[in-house]
Amino acid sequence: MNVNEAPSLLSAAQLRTLGTDAFRGLGLGCDEAAQVAEVLVLAELFGLTTHGLSRIESYGERLASRGIDPDAQVQEHSLAPAIARIEGNNAVGPLVGMRALQASMRIAKAQGVGVVLANGSNHFGPISPYSYLAAEKGFASIIGSNATTTIAPTGGSDARLGNSPLGFGVPHPEGQHFMLDMAMSVVARAKIRNALKRGEAIPETWATDAAGKPTTDPRAALDGFLLPIGGHKGYGLALMVDLFAGLLSNAAYLTHVKSWVDAPDEPQNLGHFFILIDTARLGSTAWLAERMSDFAAILHGSPAIDQQAPVIVPGEIELGKMRRHLKTGLALDASTHALLDRYASRAGKE
Amino acid sequence: MNVNEAPSLLSAAQLRTLGTDAFRGLGLGCDEAAQVAEVLVLAELFGLTTHGLSRIESYGERLASRGIDPDAQVQEHSLAPAIARIEGNNAVGPLVGMRALQASMRIAKAQGVGVVLANGSNHFGPISPYSYLAAEKGFASIIGSNATTTIAPTGGSDARLGNSPLGFGVPHPEGQHFMLDMAMSVVARAKIRNALKRGEAIPETWATDAAGKPTTDPRAALDGFLLPIGGHKGYGLALMVDLFAGLLSNAAYLTHVKSWVDAPDEPQNLGHFFILIDTARLGSTAWLAERMSDFAAILHGSPAIDQQAPVIVPGEIELGKMRRHLKTGLALDASTHALLDRYASRAGKE
Repeated sequence: MNVNEAPSLLSAAQLRTLGTDAFRGLGLGCDEAAQVAEVLVLAELFGLTTHGLSRIESYGERLASRGIDPDAQVQEHSLAPAIARIEGNNAVGPLVGMRALQASMRIAKAQGVGVVLANGSNHFGPISPYSYLAAEKGFASIIGSNATTTIAPTGGSDARLGNSPLGFGVPHPEGQHFMLDMAMSVVARAKIRNALKRGEAIPETWATDAAGKPTTDPRAALDGFLLPIGGHKGYGLALMVDLFAGLLSNAAYLTHVKSWVDAPDEPQNLGHFFILIDTARLGSTAWLAERMSDFAAILHGSPAIDQQAPVIVPGEIELGKMRRHLKTGLALDASTHALLDRYASRAGKE
Repeated sequence: MNVNEAPSLLSAAQLRTLGTDAFRGLGLGCDEAAQVAEVLVLAELFGLTTHGLSRIESYGERLASRGIDPDAQVQEHSLAPAIARIEGNNAVGPLVGMRALQASMRIAKAQGVGVVLANGSNHFGPISPYSYLAAEKGFASIIGSNATTTIAPTGGSDARLGNSPLGFGVPHPEGQHFMLDMAMSVVARAKIRNALKRGEAIPETWATDAAGKPTTDPRAALDGFLLPIGGHKGYGLALMVDLFAGLLSNAAYLTHVKSWVDAPDEPQNLGHFFILIDTARLGSTAWLAERMSDFAAILHGSPAIDQQAPVIVPGEIELGKMRRHLKTGLALDASTHALLDRYASRAGKE
């Protein structure tokens, strides 16, 4: 397929084909490439464009330079009836993530709960795609990953922990799943960069300067560190994610995680954890659907402070965007599209 | 024992005896009373006095009025090899919590992971005592409870969710466990009351007025709602805790949770969740000890902004206070002591 002739709005199937071909062009096998594309295409459908197919740029560079191993064999080891360890062996992150997800679903189906700890991995995309796939099969989930260091410990003055993402999912049998996917900083660095561009001060809860002091100057903040939500509470949550994802999985943690920027050829050895619970063991789908609908209705029933902004439940925005994108198709960013085309053109000719 | 003749500093053993006798005086059996006392005494030892034996006041009132059932039989049902449900049947909270902890440890020992969902419960004390007892046996833990509604949904204008506590523990085989025990609000209401007493304004990130608008006036804040950490992130976290602790356990959730103040005679039907992982399945104790020590050392190594306030790891403060209290003994608040004595005097005479 010559995607340049495709309509400017791509269907989910076209995105999957394009993504799969691109990762095949970067040296992955068919099945592996399809798994990676699945995560990034779901991110696109959810509207998470910064964590979607645009990642072809950084993943592609690392795959091309062998900073990520396109031939890595992901291995699974059973540690207990309800726990497995996944050795990523420096495979591309979403492939490790998908293998961990599949293993945790399989274990949870058998035992009620499945815990998978993954090491030897890389950036695995956003968490929502994994929570969504789990929820579609009836699994509640707690999923986390550690990350390159960008946050100083509370009271400290240099970056020693990552802005580790943590996600939760609870299935609604009729599709309106609860999905929360959050990093531990008050805001992403992009928001500080935007304030700098507009010449605006930032709230002093967002970031510190290089000496670790809270600042309202976006320029000083970009030289400093992101502040975690709730001060010591967010610091503690970020540590918890690193302990479960990195320390207990036998991956790197804290400052042992290599930066893609500073050490482009060294494996990052990131870690992830997946905790899945099979809700089919807890009650009938009718029971769960009734409770999940009631739960959302109670929250929606709180009178909105701003009539234009009614109360929402985490996951609503992403699932709403997905429904819209599945109906209308989705326009890819032009440079992302071009890069996907370029890598895809290397694939599938044999 | 006439505790009025005891030294003003009580040993842990004396606290346990006094607490056990007091709950026996309130109608609990010996074993049940000892379990409840264990949680509250650990809270005292950790320095969490607001969540320690002082709770004898509210627990005692509810037990005396049968708002909590002193004769409740806590029941356990296996739902899957790695999941159990605990039916609290309106027993006192820490008893339900301890039974859930014991069940989750037993299951995790067998399966690697143990998940217990508890319903029919009441306020179960702080989370640290459970995390600590789990960590002492080598279990990493994620534990949460829902709570009476005090927080408005993000964008909403009435209280529809609780300031649900969430705790994490990771064991250090040499005792310096990671323990994080946090509620979802930026601050507790007590901090706002203290600002009012001192005639000070509060930061506008702490609370809203009754209409849901952030306020710096402590008086308006006390009529309004606590704000969760990180805005929508804390809102999402609080919902996640309620989903796992309340909705999935078949307990009450959100506005279905009855307030002790507004409905003193109705069972609260609170829920809790316990997720325990047996770290013995992940590696040797030497492996874990080396990694946990290294993890703490990296954090402690971050140069402190304020030399008087070095970086700490969650759990250090509580474990440090416990060591000190075990050495020197602990002075109870006089009114708490008197109330414990009063209930204890009813017990053990038969």
